[in-house]
Amino acid sequence: MAELWRLSASEASARIGQGTLTALALAESCLARIDEREGEVLAWAHLDAQQVLTQARASDREPRRSPAHGIPLGVKDIIDTSDMPTQYGSPIYRGHRPRWDAACVAQWRAAGGIVMGKTETVEFAVRHPAPTRNPHNPAHTPGGSSSGSAAAVADFMVPVAYGTQTGGSVIRPAAYCGVVGYKPTFDLIPRAGVKPVADTLDTVGLIARTVPDVALVLSVLTDGSMPRFEAAGERTWRVGFYRTPFWDRLDAQSAAALEELASRLARAGAKVETPMLDGLERVWEAQQQVNEYETCRSFAYEREFFPEMLSAAIRERLASGSQCTLDDYLSARASIAQWQARLAEDFSRYDVLLAPSAPGTAPAGLSTTGDALFNRVWSALHVPAVTVPIGHGAHDLPIGAQVIGPFGKDLVTLALAERVHRIGAA
Amino acid sequence: MAELWRLSASEASARIGQGTLTALALAESCLARIDEREGEVLAWAHLDAQQVLTQARASDREPRRSPAHGIPLGVKDIIDTSDMPTQYGSPIYRGHRPRWDAACVAQWRAAGGIVMGKTETVEFAVRHPAPTRNPHNPAHTPGGSSSGSAAAVADFMVPVAYGTQTGGSVIRPAAYCGVVGYKPTFDLIPRAGVKPVADTLDTVGLIARTVPDVALVLSVLTDGSMPRFEAAGERTWRVGFYRTPFWDRLDAQSAAALEELASRLARAGAKVETPMLDGLERVWEAQQQVNEYETCRSFAYEREFFPEMLSAAIRERLASGSQCTLDDYLSARASIAQWQARLAEDFSRYDVLLAPSAPGTAPAGLSTTGDALFNRVWSALHVPAVTVPIGHGAHDLPIGAQVIGPFGKDLVTLALAERVHRIGAA
Repeated sequence: MAELWRLSASEASARIGQGTLTALALAESCLARIDEREGEVLAWAHLDAQQVLTQARASDREPRRSPAHGIPLGVKDIIDTSDMPTQYGSPIYRGHRPRWDAACVAQWRAAGGIVMGKTETVEFAVRHPAPTRNPHNPAHTPGGSSSGSAAAVADFMVPVAYGTQTGGSVIRPAAYCGVVGYKPTFDLIPRAGVKPVADTLDTVGLIARTVPDVALVLSVLTDGSMPRFEAAGERTWRVGFYRTPFWDRLDAQSAAALEELASRLARAGAKVETPMLDGLERVWEAQQQVNEYETCRSFAYEREFFPEMLSAAIRERLASGSQCTLDDYLSARASIAQWQARLAEDFSRYDVLLAPSAPGTAPAGLSTTGDALFNRVWSALHVPAVTVPIGHGAHDLPIGAQVIGPFGKDLVTLALAERVHRIGAA
Repeated sequence: MAELWRLSASEASARIGQGTLTALALAESCLARIDEREGEVLAWAHLDAQQVLTQARASDREPRRSPAHGIPLGVKDIIDTSDMPTQYGSPIYRGHRPRWDAACVAQWRAAGGIVMGKTETVEFAVRHPAPTRNPHNPAHTPGGSSSGSAAAVADFMVPVAYGTQTGGSVIRPAAYCGVVGYKPTFDLIPRAGVKPVADTLDTVGLIARTVPDVALVLSVLTDGSMPRFEAAGERTWRVGFYRTPFWDRLDAQSAAALEELASRLARAGAKVETPMLDGLERVWEAQQQVNEYETCRSFAYEREFFPEMLSAAIRERLASGSQCTLDDYLSARASIAQWQARLAEDFSRYDVLLAPSAPGTAPAGLSTTGDALFNRVWSALHVPAVTVPIGHGAHDLPIGAQVIGPFGKDLVTLALAERVHRIGAA
């Protein structure tokens, strides 16, 4: 059997459309890959091969419904599934079987897509690590909180997966694992059936190995619209290379890779400027206050009735949140709202911003999933962000670059992220 | 037994604090009131007297935890409860028992509050009416979608209740039933465990018979902060009497009552102006597009797997949503975001806006729950809104006035709404 598990979603979709590939063959190949690699990577919280094969056979029996038809997808275990356990990375919910599929899962099924299984998540997508390891080097974290989704896609177990991001939980693990991560405009992908963490920040995101694969999944979840990839290079594009106030916390190889990328973009015809966005530091603070306050309230049930089953890490976060006053919380939200409006104006001068995806390559060890420093602000500002791999740094681990677009301009942002990916990987 | 069911939450809380009232006596009195009136009003989707009495006895056995201690609360049946069925007004979820309490329910229990039962909701809080009748006249609708919560509070079955609002589902039924309704700054009360409808609009709200009772519940759900009611009259306050672009759709008695109220406020020392807010019409359109698009996606599971168990009314709404393109949806969200910023500037000239709560008194019949025309825009703009009863109109049914405050200024808005209530009811 050919290495069908290497196929991108777009390639597999095209072959299924042509009748040269069956959903069953693709699923069997991905299952074989998982069988070979899962012992080292530990990406899956639930995987039942028979359940996958049953879905694949059903998919092969019926007419093709969409580009998702027969494509296997990993679902972060913070997202409800009616036919698979959903444990949110917490012993409180051991064996929990939701009554419904989350809306995004139902949309995928309605489009003929296959749900491969549930991927490991940090406890409630907050802080306490999942067991998952970085497929590039099992001594390193894959990042989090969408740990299993990033590792499974990077390790060719599935071509695409769902994650969620409140601070940096899609972009960071995707960067650490050397794949593409997409955090849409806030709440673009429906959140019904997704366990809330910080409700004005949480966004369902997508992880894939290519930008067109991200776009394929997004098209199925919206109205079929695709980015105009071919048109993205037609005119001069304006890139704001934003080093952020924390450039000195970036490791040397990541900084060099970003600088080199900016130079390449300029040589490839982009107009590259370096905006300062003075005062944006306030949004970093505000995101933290909002995140802590809302997380503390979202878990009121677990805090009240199962405190002893919460990790020390999440208890600490919840305690911070309980210290934040209503006044500070509402002021933080108002600050963020003001910056959303200001950033919309700044974006009149740039098609996209370019910024680091993470402070460096994946840290050694599994006791932390790394730092969301370079992601939190974009989550708070509700703008779309895409990380694409642009090279390798320490320990030969991947480095990512983050492409950030204006609110609601997800398709243009994806098209330009694809250009950045090509230029960065060239 | 005295008519303890007439007590406001604040009065009952004070007596419980003083040791002159038990949670059990209060619960028994409210249960007796329900027993007498429920046959006509039909406010409750689930009510188990023994379950209530057990909670009340437990409450009486332990030290007072908060001002909510021993106070009975109605919970709209769109909000999850671990020990009571949660059916979302839909036959799809007949007998459904969630694994958890919604965060706002857990917060109430943690504060020592009593959950009286589940109140009737429009199917999935969207459109198809609940069986509930207006307690002022059973031939009229109580409004919706928080139908049971508004009717139960108005009919003295409970002093306070939770509702939810996406368009006008808290303010409208509260106005129709002659009680106080509060739709907070977007997403101020945690939504974990609340079934999503249109996720960038949905907000948990409160229904009570007085503004201080609303404030009591809010204080328990936040950090204990209360509005400074006594300070609200200390200086000249600025009221923007905003007739909206739809003043001609208001019935004559409601229009007259609002004009009279504005005059009274001016006589009582408020500086009353009449802002135009030109262009705000666009937000009405945008709210509708966002509402339809998101509702369609939120119910992807029910649409895919149980289409025949959905009402014709919701199927029609979902069909409208499926017609909205991604581009139109994102443009609508961007328009709303622009107006949020613009309104924040307009609010530099007003402490609050005054506007109609509904197009008139509660319509006759139970086939519709009335029109959210005067509410939708404030839901979209994420600002706090409070309706207070100011008199009676056609069929001697209640008329409400809506007080709208700046984003995040919920406590000030409640304090001024209390002044409007006193002046309007004088």
